[in-house]
Amino acid sequence: MPYFDAASSVPLHPVARQALAASLDEGWADPSRLHREGRRARLLLDAARETAAEAVGCRPDELVFTPSGTGALHRGIAGALAGRRRVGRRLAVSAVEHSAVLHAASAHREEGGSVTEVPVDRRGRVSAAAYEEALTEETALACLQSANHETGTVQPVAEIAGLCAEAGVPLLVDAAQSLAWDRPGGGWSLLAGSAHKWGGPPGVGLLAVRKGVRFAAPPPADEREQGRSPGFENIPAIVAAAASLRAVRADADAVAARLRPLIERVRAEVPRAVPDVEVVGDPVHRLPHVVTFSCLYVDGEALLHALDRAGFSVSSGSSCTSSTLTPSHVLLAMGVLSEGNIRLSLPPTPEESVEADVERFLQVLPEAVREVREQLNAPAVPRERAAGYDAAVQDAAVQDAAVQDEGTNHHAARYEEQRTVPAEGARELTVDALGTLCPMPVIELARNFDDVPVGGVITVLADDEAARVDIPAWCEMRGQEYLGAQGTRYRVRRLS
Amino acid sequence: MPYFDAASSVPLHPVARQALAASLDEGWADPSRLHREGRRARLLLDAARETAAEAVGCRPDELVFTPSGTGALHRGIAGALAGRRRVGRRLAVSAVEHSAVLHAASAHREEGGSVTEVPVDRRGRVSAAAYEEALTEETALACLQSANHETGTVQPVAEIAGLCAEAGVPLLVDAAQSLAWDRPGGGWSLLAGSAHKWGGPPGVGLLAVRKGVRFAAPPPADEREQGRSPGFENIPAIVAAAASLRAVRADADAVAARLRPLIERVRAEVPRAVPDVEVVGDPVHRLPHVVTFSCLYVDGEALLHALDRAGFSVSSGSSCTSSTLTPSHVLLAMGVLSEGNIRLSLPPTPEESVEADVERFLQVLPEAVREVREQLNAPAVPRERAAGYDAAVQDAAVQDAAVQDEGTNHHAARYEEQRTVPAEGARELTVDALGTLCPMPVIELARNFDDVPVGGVITVLADDEAARVDIPAWCEMRGQEYLGAQGTRYRVRRLS
Repeated sequence: MPYFDAASSVPLHPVARQALAASLDEGWADPSRLHREGRRARLLLDAARETAAEAVGCRPDELVFTPSGTGALHRGIAGALAGRRRVGRRLAVSAVEHSAVLHAASAHREEGGSVTEVPVDRRGRVSAAAYEEALTEETALACLQSANHETGTVQPVAEIAGLCAEAGVPLLVDAAQSLAWDRPGGGWSLLAGSAHKWGGPPGVGLLAVRKGVRFAAPPPADEREQGRSPGFENIPAIVAAAASLRAVRADADAVAARLRPLIERVRAEVPRAVPDVEVVGDPVHRLPHVVTFSCLYVDGEALLHALDRAGFSVSSGSSCTSSTLTPSHVLLAMGVLSEGNIRLSLPPTPEESVEADVERFLQVLPEAVREVREQLNAPAVPRERAAGYDAAVQDAAVQDAAVQDEGTNHHAARYEEQRTVPAEGARELTVDALGTLCPMPVIELARNFDDVPVGGVITVLADDEAARVDIPAWCEMRGQEYLGAQGTRYRVRRLS
Repeated sequence: MPYFDAASSVPLHPVARQALAASLDEGWADPSRLHREGRRARLLLDAARETAAEAVGCRPDELVFTPSGTGALHRGIAGALAGRRRVGRRLAVSAVEHSAVLHAASAHREEGGSVTEVPVDRRGRVSAAAYEEALTEETALACLQSANHETGTVQPVAEIAGLCAEAGVPLLVDAAQSLAWDRPGGGWSLLAGSAHKWGGPPGVGLLAVRKGVRFAAPPPADEREQGRSPGFENIPAIVAAAASLRAVRADADAVAARLRPLIERVRAEVPRAVPDVEVVGDPVHRLPHVVTFSCLYVDGEALLHALDRAGFSVSSGSSCTSSTLTPSHVLLAMGVLSEGNIRLSLPPTPEESVEADVERFLQVLPEAVREVREQLNAPAVPRERAAGYDAAVQDAAVQDAAVQDEGTNHHAARYEEQRTVPAEGARELTVDALGTLCPMPVIELARNFDDVPVGGVITVLADDEAARVDIPAWCEMRGQEYLGAQGTRYRVRRLS
């Protein structure tokens, strides 16, 4: 059963399991106590710190362990901002940072600070020019991920670190996605990571703060971990985390060399096998194990379930798969299609069968997408784009399938009433998709599109936030003109 | 090798170890994902929550897991204060709460809130009358431990909960020390605990918030654990924590019945076997497994090491054993002797040999104390009090041992210059113990005491904070009159 969701979490590395079992016997005591059990725990903790610091590329006394990567980011950001409060209260973050960073930024804003979000290009990368603008005299801290968790896009950290150094602004690097692969490049001031991403146990994050970086740990005070991370140290898990980081890193180049071509193949093959797919993320600057694509007219949750039934565990940034029903902020910031979004991320300790599993995924995917589209009564794919895709089946299904699903599928629920029938030859048409969820607004747009003549304008009323990226993305994919949005009104001119 | 420091941390319970090993395979994935690994993790998490809620006595949806007991307290206090900010900004805590509570209180004060510290009696208990005074119209939250971590004194939680209910103030109970023993009584609004105190793994705390209690989780936001505890859930450890809580609780009454008489015996025997000892904590309202005592003229760190060499792992609240060189705030608040402080806390899953180990401890202790006193050139113990204690040896050592240790023992370092020789028959004497650490100020007081006549006054200059409790405690133990302190000047009248 292939697990392709490594960017969320990976199973425990065998080395971590061994280290955990061994240190449960030795590392349960309070390392601040003077008795032998305490001293033994302290020794284990010190050794783990050495190992982790070596992997991160810092001094042991610059590194503390936290209960999670999120904890490391929250405390790292709060501590660095507080340490430079006299300089200013501006925080710079890229628009595609992990939600833990963006939530810390929101908290900072609520407390009266200001936040500059640096935009990314369509491939999810920040540019040096854009980041430089965010570095003002009042900027207390800049944050940048080493690589994006949803798209695998690798950020130009060294370049941005150079700009930050010139501007005298400390740079916090969220290295959660890349620590398994390599030691982060120099130039950072603070760095955060999360053990369960590299095969360590959950419950361990790390925060490194370079000597000389001003840092004032957020209250309440606590004497553990240099006062930077409160609570009793989770030593067995810390020992396991450090051991597995070293083990994973030792194999990283070989594993990357094995996974990179698999990801290349997915990037190339998915658009050939499935019509109307957008592969997102940077094709060159990317992690070796992650690929993400979005499928037009596809409900991400339905596709996830179809793939799950076929034995594949993947994740999705589609709005319908999130508890908030908003699409991934990463896809939004990139301006790429968010519907039918699927991320494959291969574990850094891949199964022997990973090549075969990826091939099987490529075989299963087209049918899974086709089924979901059929359920949603999605418009036929233009024949010229439908390589290897049975458009005839699709056409036949269009006539009567939609209403049939009404009871069970919230996406199609309002189908019958959502169309304003145009007068003969009218050059304007309004389609009401209010209350429907992604991908229905785009499906409605496509379904009614032929009813306006070339040069005419179709307006889609939609309140699902995904429409904000998905309607422009559809225009881009179909070569039609996106005229923009006003509130919930999205306007498109038919060009062909 | 007897480990008698259970109140700090206990080894992993066998049930926890089994549960941990099993759930490492099943519980490593992200429980918010829709794939099978995610769903499996979610099932484990839900089941663990049910188990823990049953043990705590709340609904599963009232309980979240945190990365530590400290984390539970910090977030519980911050969330409850924020939730009732409109009511007022006053926080009531007992003076003997865990440092995590007192640090949260300090943070609240720094942010403009106010804190009322409810005093305790000499046994470490709050009184209903004293607590009631702290419950004003502006009180947003009251905190009270179920039992004290240093003395084992059990607090009148039900009574205080009743007062809080009358006053409409939510009560947060820090149940860290008692959760292994029993389900907390009703009446609480919030409750915190820590798994490594009951044989669960480190890295797991719990926070329960009763439905209807106003709670606003402190920022940054995070979607995990109802938004109340940020960061990826540590499911294997959570599963192990819940399983071991249930297992420990099932045996709790039997274990308590076994340990309680052992603690009784220590409480009775230590003062018989060792002269000048004060057993602290409530003799009746107490945990079954904790006993604490302080030894006059003893350096706590030296005694810890002596006991460690004899194979006993215990802890101490003496100032010389803390990184801050201040004595335990608990002993300070109780006003009891803090020097030579030792806490024995027996594990809730005791070794078969625990009875024999306790007996051996009682055999070893007197000699260990005698050795430490000898090294410090402590004054002879009055003969009438020295049952079973070789006072002659002590007397012989007084003459010349002190200066001899100067190089290695900071406590005695300033011995030679610290006495102002009185004029013949003078009724006032000043002893300069500035710069010396506990127990030296008290030793100097005792050593020079006979040089003032009955009715005369001796002044001790001391800047070690421990003097604040240890000099009055000495007067109490010796039947002399403590006249009070002004800054670093402590005055004592000789009565006999």
